[in-house]
Amino acid sequence: MSGWLEELDRLAASRAKAGLTRQLRPRATAVDLAGNDYLGLAGDPRVTEAAAGALARWGLGATGSRLVRGTTSAHASLEASLGEWLGTAAALVFSSGYLANLAAVRSMAALCDVIVSDAYNHASLIDGCRMAGTKTIVAPHNSPSAVAAILDAQAPSTAVVVTESVFSVDGDLAPLAELHEVTSSRGALLLVDDAHALGLLGPEGAGGVAAAGLAGKPDVVVTATLSKSLGGAGGVVAGPAQFIKHLIDTGRTFIYDTALPPAVAAGVEESLRIARAADDRRALVAGRAAQAVARLRSAGFEVASPAAGVLSVVAPGPEAALAWAADCRDRGIAVGCFRPPSTPDGSSRLRLTLNAGVTGPDFARALDVIVECAP
Amino acid sequence: MSGWLEELDRLAASRAKAGLTRQLRPRATAVDLAGNDYLGLAGDPRVTEAAAGALARWGLGATGSRLVRGTTSAHASLEASLGEWLGTAAALVFSSGYLANLAAVRSMAALCDVIVSDAYNHASLIDGCRMAGTKTIVAPHNSPSAVAAILDAQAPSTAVVVTESVFSVDGDLAPLAELHEVTSSRGALLLVDDAHALGLLGPEGAGGVAAAGLAGKPDVVVTATLSKSLGGAGGVVAGPAQFIKHLIDTGRTFIYDTALPPAVAAGVEESLRIARAADDRRALVAGRAAQAVARLRSAGFEVASPAAGVLSVVAPGPEAALAWAADCRDRGIAVGCFRPPSTPDGSSRLRLTLNAGVTGPDFARALDVIVECAP
Ligand SMILES: Cc1ncc(COP(=O)(O)O)c(C=O)c1O
Ligand SMILES: Cc1ncc(COP(=O)(O)O)c(C=O)c1O
Repeated sequence: MSGWLEELDRLAASRAKAGLTRQLRPRATAVDLAGNDYLGLAGDPRVTEAAAGALARWGLGATGSRLVRGTTSAHASLEASLGEWLGTAAALVFSSGYLANLAAVRSMAALCDVIVSDAYNHASLIDGCRMAGTKTIVAPHNSPSAVAAILDAQAPSTAVVVTESVFSVDGDLAPLAELHEVTSSRGALLLVDDAHALGLLGPEGAGGVAAAGLAGKPDVVVTATLSKSLGGAGGVVAGPAQFIKHLIDTGRTFIYDTALPPAVAAGVEESLRIARAADDRRALVAGRAAQAVARLRSAGFEVASPAAGVLSVVAPGPEAALAWAADCRDRGIAVGCFRPPSTPDGSSRLRLTLNAGVTGPDFARALDVIVECAP
Repeated sequence: MSGWLEELDRLAASRAKAGLTRQLRPRATAVDLAGNDYLGLAGDPRVTEAAAGALARWGLGATGSRLVRGTTSAHASLEASLGEWLGTAAALVFSSGYLANLAAVRSMAALCDVIVSDAYNHASLIDGCRMAGTKTIVAPHNSPSAVAAILDAQAPSTAVVVTESVFSVDGDLAPLAELHEVTSSRGALLLVDDAHALGLLGPEGAGGVAAAGLAGKPDVVVTATLSKSLGGAGGVVAGPAQFIKHLIDTGRTFIYDTALPPAVAAGVEESLRIARAADDRRALVAGRAAQAVARLRSAGFEVASPAAGVLSVVAPGPEAALAWAADCRDRGIAVGCFRPPSTPDGSSRLRLTLNAGVTGPDFARALDVIVECAP
């Protein structure tokens, strides 16, 4: 391996050739259609002030895992609020959604013989399956009948079915009620990553699981990140008290990880309080979604109707997608650019995310710029 | 799996029987010998004010991954400071040390045929090996000769040797210079998790790798958490520019994860500035270590001399360790209690961590209490 730097150079060159180099760029002052601050809460003064107050009280970091260093009231209170909002018996906060997913998938899989994982699942769910070491069958995207067939073929195995609610790249919604019918009638468990639906779908924005009438079901576990609609950081696993207790005792990414900073927990809890009451912001996001679809379709683009705040526009290829996003950025509009391996189907696209904090005129201008910059 | 809750109950009962139930308790107002705030910086007003300023500027969360949402100056500046401090060509910040380790192990392992992993490595390193899917050989703890024998037996394979510097449970130091002689002479790579040495060992506290004279070596990669001596949260991977570029392009836990909150990055950078100049605090921690060892040994306990800020005291068993820690807590002294599976050798123990922010009289009293509460 004395030649490993040369090997890394060779790999970089072949990525460059395929148009798959990634560049860290300074964050531009731009209209934000790239981030996941769907409700515009990350910069809300009520949220940042709640965090600042906790910062003065608890200091910057948690200084250890909660099992070793103790649970601050900021963590305990946030977990109580999350459980109440999501309608689950219990909730456990992690330092990221990624680590929450690793723990949830691995711990559920340890009780099962088979994982059935949606083909478009997020990297953290896929890594959870890999970490679990349990036989994993990838199911065609959003197909309850395919999941049913897989479960029937695997019977009498015990299984957990893993899916997102609103998918992170395409913005479409999993048929959660149908999936639950399939799982519950076959004695399988259902794990739903509600990252992109939390705050946007369901009563009081309680998420896709709540919207599907599955909140609090004893065979359903929900995960989410606190970094999208809630504008903060961290993750949560919510479900039956017995499962949460199991995670506290055995979840490696909970036990062996420094807790979320108390100040972030406090900020997120204030954000959650605002989000529950923010039907106006949810309506605004839904209206913007319809407006964007209409504008882009009338300009001839292939756009799916978003279930929540994620809109995906197909581009001709990775370089074209990159150039399109770069041109938008040069004109003051930040949009996401997703290329393989970040897209499940190997396509490249712009990903637009809606943000209730963007003004109406800015949003309309952003759509114009996107159309004008198209390849 | 309709019976999964009953199965979880059964598992909980068997953990309870083995004395391995974990309890989340409210953080007590106590003398802190449990956390990892070695230099006492988590609550330093300069640190919390730097974070508060960034909070007002950037909002609570990063609102997306840095590749999608852009890099804030807080992230870029922290990475420049980390690279300079650690003496590496480049550094990349992650949202936790756990996720930094997963990325570093997996990405290095992808270039190798074999991972050689120290038997006492942290859960995040072990999970990294698991995630990598690369053949992993567990080496006896802190034995360069054993590592050499393994590498020789595996030749002509390419290998990465993975170790902590100061080990998180026992507080002993890996023989890094000898390990590097073994790896470099055999063309293997060396990955060092410097979590518990950063801020405490080496010139200006640059860590165990720097102390061993290995800073900036092209065949060495360093990881660390920003949550211990630096009192914040997040993780870092530091090493050759080509490797950091590789992580930006392909590191799943970097690409598919929301960035560290900018306010935390800003707080950590202020903390880093203070830590570099804090030879006085490092001397205080070293003095406390000697004081604790002397006091505990004279009371008849088995205590190893700590290489940095972690002291481990063997207890007769898991329940005794738990009761010991609980008695200390009742008397206002927070100490860690480590039981299987958190201890690599299956023993149970108190883990004391030194904190320069604790006053001298409080520290002396804490040692008295620990001795008085012993089983
Ligand atoms: C669907 C989904 N799950 C999990 C995560 C990970 O959450 P976090 O960023 O908090 O690690 C993300 C994005 O970041 C996501 O889009
Ligand atoms: C040796 C070691 N590596 C990695 C980590 C993980 O870092 P973080 O807590 O930032 O995830 C820890 C502890 O938390 C640790 O002790």
